[in-house]
Amino acid sequence: MIVVMKLGATPAQVQHAAEEIDRLGLKSHVIVGTERTVVAAVGDERVEGAKQHLESLDAVENVMPILAPYKIASLETKKEPTAVEVMKLRIGAGNIGVIAGPCSVEDEAQIVSVAKLVKAAGATGLRGGAFKPRTSPYSFQGLKEKGLEMLALAREATGLAIVTEVMAPEHVPLVGKYTDVLQIGARNMQNYPLLEAAGESGKTILLKRGPSATMEEFLLAAEYILKTGNKNVILCERGIRTFEDHVRFTLPLTSVPYLKQKTHLPIVVDPSHGTGKSSLVPAMALASIACGADGLIVEVHPDPEHAMSDGSQSLTPAAFQKMMTECRKVAAAVGKTMA
Amino acid sequence: MIVVMKLGATPAQVQHAAEEIDRLGLKSHVIVGTERTVVAAVGDERVEGAKQHLESLDAVENVMPILAPYKIASLETKKEPTAVEVMKLRIGAGNIGVIAGPCSVEDEAQIVSVAKLVKAAGATGLRGGAFKPRTSPYSFQGLKEKGLEMLALAREATGLAIVTEVMAPEHVPLVGKYTDVLQIGARNMQNYPLLEAAGESGKTILLKRGPSATMEEFLLAAEYILKTGNKNVILCERGIRTFEDHVRFTLPLTSVPYLKQKTHLPIVVDPSHGTGKSSLVPAMALASIACGADGLIVEVHPDPEHAMSDGSQSLTPAAFQKMMTECRKVAAAVGKTMA
Amino acid sequence: MIVVMKLGATPAQVQHAAEEIDRLGLKSHVIVGTERTVVAAVGDERVEGAKQHLESLDAVENVMPILAPYKIASLETKKEPTAVEVMKLRIGAGNIGVIAGPCSVEDEAQIVSVAKLVKAAGATGLRGGAFKPRTSPYSFQGLKEKGLEMLALAREATGLAIVTEVMAPEHVPLVGKYTDVLQIGARNMQNYPLLEAAGESGKTILLKRGPSATMEEFLLAAEYILKTGNKNVILCERGIRTFEDHVRFTLPLTSVPYLKQKTHLPIVVDPSHGTGKSSLVPAMALASIACGADGLIVEVHPDPEHAMSDGSQSLTPAAFQKMMTECRKVAAAVGKTMA
Amino acid sequence: MIVVMKLGATPAQVQHAAEEIDRLGLKSHVIVGTERTVVAAVGDERVEGAKQHLESLDAVENVMPILAPYKIASLETKKEPTAVEVMKLRIGAGNIGVIAGPCSVEDEAQIVSVAKLVKAAGATGLRGGAFKPRTSPYSFQGLKEKGLEMLALAREATGLAIVTEVMAPEHVPLVGKYTDVLQIGARNMQNYPLLEAAGESGKTILLKRGPSATMEEFLLAAEYILKTGNKNVILCERGIRTFEDHVRFTLPLTSVPYLKQKTHLPIVVDPSHGTGKSSLVPAMALASIACGADGLIVEVHPDPEHAMSDGSQSLTPAAFQKMMTECRKVAAAVGKTMA
Repeated sequence: MIVVMKLGATPAQVQHAAEEIDRLGLKSHVIVGTERTVVAAVGDERVEGAKQHLESLDAVENVMPILAPYKIASLETKKEPTAVEVMKLRIGAGNIGVIAGPCSVEDEAQIVSVAKLVKAAGATGLRGGAFKPRTSPYSFQGLKEKGLEMLALAREATGLAIVTEVMAPEHVPLVGKYTDVLQIGARNMQNYPLLEAAGESGKTILLKRGPSATMEEFLLAAEYILKTGNKNVILCERGIRTFEDHVRFTLPLTSVPYLKQKTHLPIVVDPSHGTGKSSLVPAMALASIACGADGLIVEVHPDPEHAMSDGSQSLTPAAFQKMMTECRKVAAAVGKTMA
Repeated sequence: MIVVMKLGATPAQVQHAAEEIDRLGLKSHVIVGTERTVVAAVGDERVEGAKQHLESLDAVENVMPILAPYKIASLETKKEPTAVEVMKLRIGAGNIGVIAGPCSVEDEAQIVSVAKLVKAAGATGLRGGAFKPRTSPYSFQGLKEKGLEMLALAREATGLAIVTEVMAPEHVPLVGKYTDVLQIGARNMQNYPLLEAAGESGKTILLKRGPSATMEEFLLAAEYILKTGNKNVILCERGIRTFEDHVRFTLPLTSVPYLKQKTHLPIVVDPSHGTGKSSLVPAMALASIACGADGLIVEVHPDPEHAMSDGSQSLTPAAFQKMMTECRKVAAAVGKTMA
Repeated sequence: MIVVMKLGATPAQVQHAAEEIDRLGLKSHVIVGTERTVVAAVGDERVEGAKQHLESLDAVENVMPILAPYKIASLETKKEPTAVEVMKLRIGAGNIGVIAGPCSVEDEAQIVSVAKLVKAAGATGLRGGAFKPRTSPYSFQGLKEKGLEMLALAREATGLAIVTEVMAPEHVPLVGKYTDVLQIGARNMQNYPLLEAAGESGKTILLKRGPSATMEEFLLAAEYILKTGNKNVILCERGIRTFEDHVRFTLPLTSVPYLKQKTHLPIVVDPSHGTGKSSLVPAMALASIACGADGLIVEVHPDPEHAMSDGSQSLTPAAFQKMMTECRKVAAAVGKTMA
Repeated sequence: MIVVMKLGATPAQVQHAAEEIDRLGLKSHVIVGTERTVVAAVGDERVEGAKQHLESLDAVENVMPILAPYKIASLETKKEPTAVEVMKLRIGAGNIGVIAGPCSVEDEAQIVSVAKLVKAAGATGLRGGAFKPRTSPYSFQGLKEKGLEMLALAREATGLAIVTEVMAPEHVPLVGKYTDVLQIGARNMQNYPLLEAAGESGKTILLKRGPSATMEEFLLAAEYILKTGNKNVILCERGIRTFEDHVRFTLPLTSVPYLKQKTHLPIVVDPSHGTGKSSLVPAMALASIACGADGLIVEVHPDPEHAMSDGSQSLTPAAFQKMMTECRKVAAAVGKTMA
């Protein structure tokens, strides 16, 4: 860390800062500038509370960390990219895996038929919500365990890997029983008891970025899961909240190449939530693959007009199939393989 | 709702939209404009999934709701403001209640001594984290049940109402046993199982706004609690995430008068998290009272330099006392009472 | 427009709103709902000040426009896409045009050599700042007219179309004398006297989106230019300001497919300013093409280490050439042509 | 500056960075950490292009400035607060100056009558737009010189200081002839030719913060004016663009105490644009004064319903008078004087 002293900090205050740095097990290094003095703190600065402590010292202006605060997620810790393989779903290591399906599981016929349709188009994972976090308590909250059973039937019928959301630590065993990949939703990215419970299940986790999370917070959330010993974490960019009002969320695809420079974890993009409008989804799916994403998670509904949630951002099976054909061309152009 | 049809929508498509509106139990009303046709949907538009359904219709451009989606929280439902009174803490009905204390409970001596100091300065509630949500898994996570016991001792010693965070549904009974007000943290504003479990406890709930939540989402989160039958909800503005980099969060105080126009629930402000810097806290506390807040929640630590978390945003007891003196003057200027 | 009346609006207030709508030359249409009354205003609602006027009426809650406020820029006005062709630069109509060059023109040798290098790699336009808007008054402000002369020499040597920024209305004639495309920078997107002066010059205009501009404001800025009779406007997405701190700006590529649905004007992307880091530029260039952009504007410097401005976001000529090879593959995959 | 080297930077790369720092006239200081090496650059780091240059070096991860980039605006340069006094308008030095008036000058009777009304309520400055920057080219653009003449008549009739916007460098002499304070609007905060022309006029300048400007950019814009030798700059916080959709802009009042810690320039707040709704203006005016603002600029229209622009955010004279009475109480509570 670099501890920047206030203008006019006295030698005694500087010395106090240096001593506190040493007391934390770091090595202090005073640099007297022409206007300000800074004290460098050399060593593993990720000491619990070190930054907060130094920031609260009397003549300290601010404290700038040098090291990233996450460790296990870091590319510096593990240089080879992590690839995930669950059932037929392959994400990473040159493979683009596509997870598709409806926002909510509505009934058995619906989910089985969608599963077959998206599989035919090339998807290897099936998404579908059984426990649904909804902004309004008056909206449809999902079929819960019945929905999970229907997902399991769809898996049986197609061999697709099941990806579904888990909303509370106490649901992890139940949801885990029926599914292959546990999804942590954007609203729960910093629900730490949930991250830990999900991590401890040993299941593959798809972690969605919170709509106001920085990259550092996103990777620290992944770190909560990785710290349980679970190595199978897929990051998912799904859009952030900004002033833009023509989309539901702003989809910042630069996250993809940036994360590739910082972490070994695979990255998928959700262009459905990331735009909120089905007419914008295919273009953003192509862009995701072009900039290096390892996969996609896309909403597809056989009859978007009658979807019980998020119909306006769901593709029809025909639109999905067309998108997949175009995605394969872009994937080939960037040297990737798609099922 | 107003359903705006796409340019060039055919009469058949307009009629289909109208029929779907009627099918939802609303009454359709077609208005043919010079450039576009819109269809008004008259009735209680908060029908489950109605907006999504209409948005997904073929020639529909977009759907604009007319009514606020929350009901119990609405000032239209309950015209007289809700006031909260727990132990000596009075929030609302002309009273400004101040909750103060350290970010984390660290040991018995610390919490009891802070409790006495803030009480002497006029606080009627004591804050202090026992279960701490922390961005990094490597940061101090709180003393958990031991911390709760210490809070209970501080209550015994001072009579202050205890306000502390609960992070998971399964912790609600435990945390509820020791405290007077359950705090739902900003990261958990949309943790719906937690909102419901907290609501069902019957305890007073202090609900913090999520850093990227709109006012509507904030009130819908309150609605989740209110829907359990629990009427004692305090809203807390604690800052939003924006591009500003000179503060930890942007504190949008306009929320206070805006919420007063929309809801009967009382509103407190957290200028500590809302700025992230102790030197900015007193000015924003004064501003909060001036614009109509019913209370404050403020971090105070006897020795911010050695705080185990958030030291840089904690006031010293002396600074807190000075702030309270100034707050009382502003409260008087706007016709409010402070302990 | 839809005028939403406040709860409890009296019949007289509703009638007054209806009369005001009629007075504005629109046709009012009252719809009495179960909870609220709305009044539709049918006709060309883009009457000067109509929305503001109706919003200020006594019992009006809010006013929702139905029509987009821009006209000439609208795809509804002109259905066939506008393509731009200046010198060898072709943007739109299936052609992807790439404008490349240094942030600032530094000397003749530099600009001529870069021009040759980027031309060799496939660029058909040359960018380079002569008048530089800089955040700090202490930063390099550009070579001004001398820089323009150097750009003209580079054009002579290569046949590339020159794209350079104009910062003030009184500079338009001078800058226009030397260049083919006048760039309006992001900071000046709502500098209306400049938009008008640039438009009146008849030159092709490259209009950059302001970092906090909505799509509607962006298209209205274009409308200022189009209204002068100038039809040659290129829109440029260059990133918006959000809370993200790992990039200089957030690059919201969804703008590209969205704008394609709203306007006939061609759209280019600036991945250099849109990320601020050269290592992220190539991936975002590929993504831009994949999602439908008509062109790119990219910073290339022969020696980024010694660039007088923005070195950290400039590609080396070698990196640019590699990027262009990859771009051509993605362009082919989406059915576009690149020089 | 602190230059952070990439992990695995070679000794030769570190040495190169150190040499480049020395070559810029700063003094390098290498600190070898356990994981990374950083090189401190001691001296006046505000050397032109120094940060960009160092950032573009081969093994440099990033460069963190230590010093604020503005100089003349800094509280470190001038410790006593700057107070402005123009006609009867006093801003700073314990005085709260209030500038009030319509968004646009509409006719002589209107502006003279508003001037008298706001003066009676305690305003000492009169605002009113003659040149109006409007988002849409189809909106009312102001009466231009005729409007200026009307403002001069209002000044004659009341003695209020006239505050009006100037939009282009070539209008500075004309606008300056009729007015006491030149306003630079939010859209033009980074219109550098305009800042310089306005500064050189010697007139007092009211500089509005751009809706996506950081505090540093805001103070650097002020620096452009101050650098011309003009010392009379008033900063104006008028709201920023965020995801909040219940207000026109988010009004981040923490700017006020923050700026007080960084600059000697006086700060006023514009709660009219900062909220966009007249019903929210009085509360935010009170909050502005409570947190230390030196003044207010507020829209008042004798008949908001018939205002030619921004009617919905204008107060009636009666509402303004009531607000002023309340403001005086809060001003007294924080030890300030109001006319």
